[in-house]
Amino acid sequence: MSDIRQETAEAAPAQDEVLTPEFVEAVLGAVEAGDHDGLVAALEPLHEADIADLLEQISKPEREALVRVWGKALDGAVLSELEEGVRDEVVAALSDDVLAAAVQDLETDDVVYLAEDMEAPEQERILRALDEADRAAVEQSLKYGEDSAGRLMQREVVVAPEHWTVGDAIDFMRAEEWLPESFYDIIIVDPHMHPVGMVALGRLMGAGRKVRLKELMDEDFRTIRADQPQEDVAYLFNKYHLTSAPVVDADGRLVGVITIDDAMEALDEEAEEDILRLAGVGDEELSDGVFAIARARFVWLAINLGTAIVSATVISQFTDTIRAFVALAVLMPIVASMGGNAGTQALTVTVRAIATRSLGSSNVGRFVRREVLVGFCNGIAFACLIGLIAGLFFQDVRLGAVIAVAMVGNMVVAGFAGALVPIGLEKLGVDPALASATFVTTTTDVFGFFAFLGLATLLLA
Amino acid sequence: MSDIRQETAEAAPAQDEVLTPEFVEAVLGAVEAGDHDGLVAALEPLHEADIADLLEQISKPEREALVRVWGKALDGAVLSELEEGVRDEVVAALSDDVLAAAVQDLETDDVVYLAEDMEAPEQERILRALDEADRAAVEQSLKYGEDSAGRLMQREVVVAPEHWTVGDAIDFMRAEEWLPESFYDIIIVDPHMHPVGMVALGRLMGAGRKVRLKELMDEDFRTIRADQPQEDVAYLFNKYHLTSAPVVDADGRLVGVITIDDAMEALDEEAEEDILRLAGVGDEELSDGVFAIARARFVWLAINLGTAIVSATVISQFTDTIRAFVALAVLMPIVASMGGNAGTQALTVTVRAIATRSLGSSNVGRFVRREVLVGFCNGIAFACLIGLIAGLFFQDVRLGAVIAVAMVGNMVVAGFAGALVPIGLEKLGVDPALASATFVTTTTDVFGFFAFLGLATLLLA
Repeated sequence: MSDIRQETAEAAPAQDEVLTPEFVEAVLGAVEAGDHDGLVAALEPLHEADIADLLEQISKPEREALVRVWGKALDGAVLSELEEGVRDEVVAALSDDVLAAAVQDLETDDVVYLAEDMEAPEQERILRALDEADRAAVEQSLKYGEDSAGRLMQREVVVAPEHWTVGDAIDFMRAEEWLPESFYDIIIVDPHMHPVGMVALGRLMGAGRKVRLKELMDEDFRTIRADQPQEDVAYLFNKYHLTSAPVVDADGRLVGVITIDDAMEALDEEAEEDILRLAGVGDEELSDGVFAIARARFVWLAINLGTAIVSATVISQFTDTIRAFVALAVLMPIVASMGGNAGTQALTVTVRAIATRSLGSSNVGRFVRREVLVGFCNGIAFACLIGLIAGLFFQDVRLGAVIAVAMVGNMVVAGFAGALVPIGLEKLGVDPALASATFVTTTTDVFGFFAFLGLATLLLA
Repeated sequence: MSDIRQETAEAAPAQDEVLTPEFVEAVLGAVEAGDHDGLVAALEPLHEADIADLLEQISKPEREALVRVWGKALDGAVLSELEEGVRDEVVAALSDDVLAAAVQDLETDDVVYLAEDMEAPEQERILRALDEADRAAVEQSLKYGEDSAGRLMQREVVVAPEHWTVGDAIDFMRAEEWLPESFYDIIIVDPHMHPVGMVALGRLMGAGRKVRLKELMDEDFRTIRADQPQEDVAYLFNKYHLTSAPVVDADGRLVGVITIDDAMEALDEEAEEDILRLAGVGDEELSDGVFAIARARFVWLAINLGTAIVSATVISQFTDTIRAFVALAVLMPIVASMGGNAGTQALTVTVRAIATRSLGSSNVGRFVRREVLVGFCNGIAFACLIGLIAGLFFQDVRLGAVIAVAMVGNMVVAGFAGALVPIGLEKLGVDPALASATFVTTTTDVFGFFAFLGLATLLLA
């Protein structure tokens, strides 16, 4: 009983629960002492994903030393769990024979995952480590575009013709030498290898040997073309609750299968990409160095500098007014900031609605109108608030009125731009997560400063 | 062949491909004409998820009319696909007998999903529609906390004792009346119902009837406690590539199973929540009305107004300097904006690192240092740029120097706050996605204005 308790207590370990400081220290101690057996014994109970986490957390020299001491005991599965930067580093540190041993253990789709982002010479090293058949399969997969269904799919598929019975299928599988590591459905094909249905293993299990697969077959399945983006894969699995989907070529012939575990990974990658892109962060990784990251983020910041200068130019048109009413300089960032925040709310909701494909021609008009009205409502609310505060603080009713009117206007503009910019970018084929924020906040900054300072020039002078 | 082509072309429909404007119009036409048979015929070929999308896209009066005309033909599965607001509306519009028919078709975990967010009287209506056994199961599930593993799990589990053979297991499943809709593994339990291993259906299929389950059993499985949050479930499935996980009570006894399709939904929900929270958007839905949304977003905007007023207060300390050098008013938003953007980059990366549990005691120090250094590098780069631009434009070397120094300082502060604020919030038990942005941008605004205007007061006066 106490064993079980301990096991369940460890069920969802935070990083520090598996990789405790003491454990990491013990591992690094073994590495420093060059104690191969001690290291192997320490790593053995760990899941490959935890070993990968460990490698990612320690410093670069520690990592190289660990891989050296670990030597031939290295588990190939760890490589496919590593993030790109660390993976390249570890692979580069491996001798040819260790690499070959590590790679031969893997399924071909894991090798594809491993090799796809590598530079040509490193990729060549991986391919050379494979036997003939596996190499051909990997090369075939690499021909599909990056982040495509063809890259995600397994080529090992369990297929059966319609006329088979449950008994035929079970006997066939028992006789097979290889069965894919994870499969949940048998794909039923016609004589031309076109998928016509799927039978879930659970249904197969529950049926008698004599039952025909045709009777168990689910015809309401979704095929995916090998050249479709992984974004589509994640969307289809999530929406239609699929566990497997046959992947077909341009002629509709079966070339592979995508299972829900691949789709879940794709979903996670796409969500990560959207979160980071919305914040102006590219494909950086936790293990990247300072300069690589600074350079990657520079681009976005440079664009932001450009738009900030545009806003500054707007302000510079009103320097006389500001000199006369310096309270304007105090208040103007409030108008811009509120517009920027309201715009960010609207654009994030819009980007999500686009990502979940919830906007269609029948509701897009209503959606935009709603965002504008939300901006208007909150604009009125905050106009009253800030108008009162500013009017009282500076003892100037007209100043309060000016900031109130500018606030309403900018919040409406925020709703309008927040909804329309992502929709427009999507129509132009640009990822709305990537560029929307710049456009929207520039719009609210420029409009906010212009409306506030312009009104002030008209009304206060 | 041409049929297949068409099918594959429809493989990943965007919203408008299934729900074309013509289709939506035809459906609404049938609804308006009160044509029950026409409506049923139109909806019949659609997946329940697509029907749910349709209901979400049309307006409220259209929705109510559609449900009325659809009547008893309503497919219960559509209800669990609807987003909360629309679902409540549709359920309220159903007569008791239609609701009962719809709900009785569903698996108990779908009923839980349907009922959990409802008000007590509506929940009571749903429960009353169920038969005795189902109602007890649903009530049991609802006792677990919201977003807990207990809510996510299926109570129908296929279990077997260790000593069984493959043949025993297959015979048992063939004899069972009920088998869960989706199951991929058999859970092996000891006599006290403690899970001791799992056998994947695929492995079972490939083995002869005489093989003992013990030999096929994977002992490297993860159990989940029923009271763990769904965030843990998503994390564990994603990290360890699980397809099923036994759910246990506090004594380690099996009470249910979570399958990867549930985990994928949890992952999607958690990612959605993070994206929206980072932008200051709560649990709003596409179908919510203007006032509901405006009210939900008001809170965040009010907090932002508070912080903007704090920044304004900082500026107000320097009105004399601004009056003397009005160029400061033109330039100060640039310093604040660059700091805000750099801070957002840093905090987003930090929030993601926390969400993926990539920060442990062995790397958190290195992580914070890196963010500060990235801020410093980009700070230097942009200080040179903006210093040059400002110095040349205003023909004032000292002004260029002031903005350059303020820029470096603010970018360093951005990196520091962007990394430390989410880490600190997490330690305090607050969701870092929820509150980080306010704290970080307030910090960069206040510091940016203070450093820039303060330096200007010292150096230009």
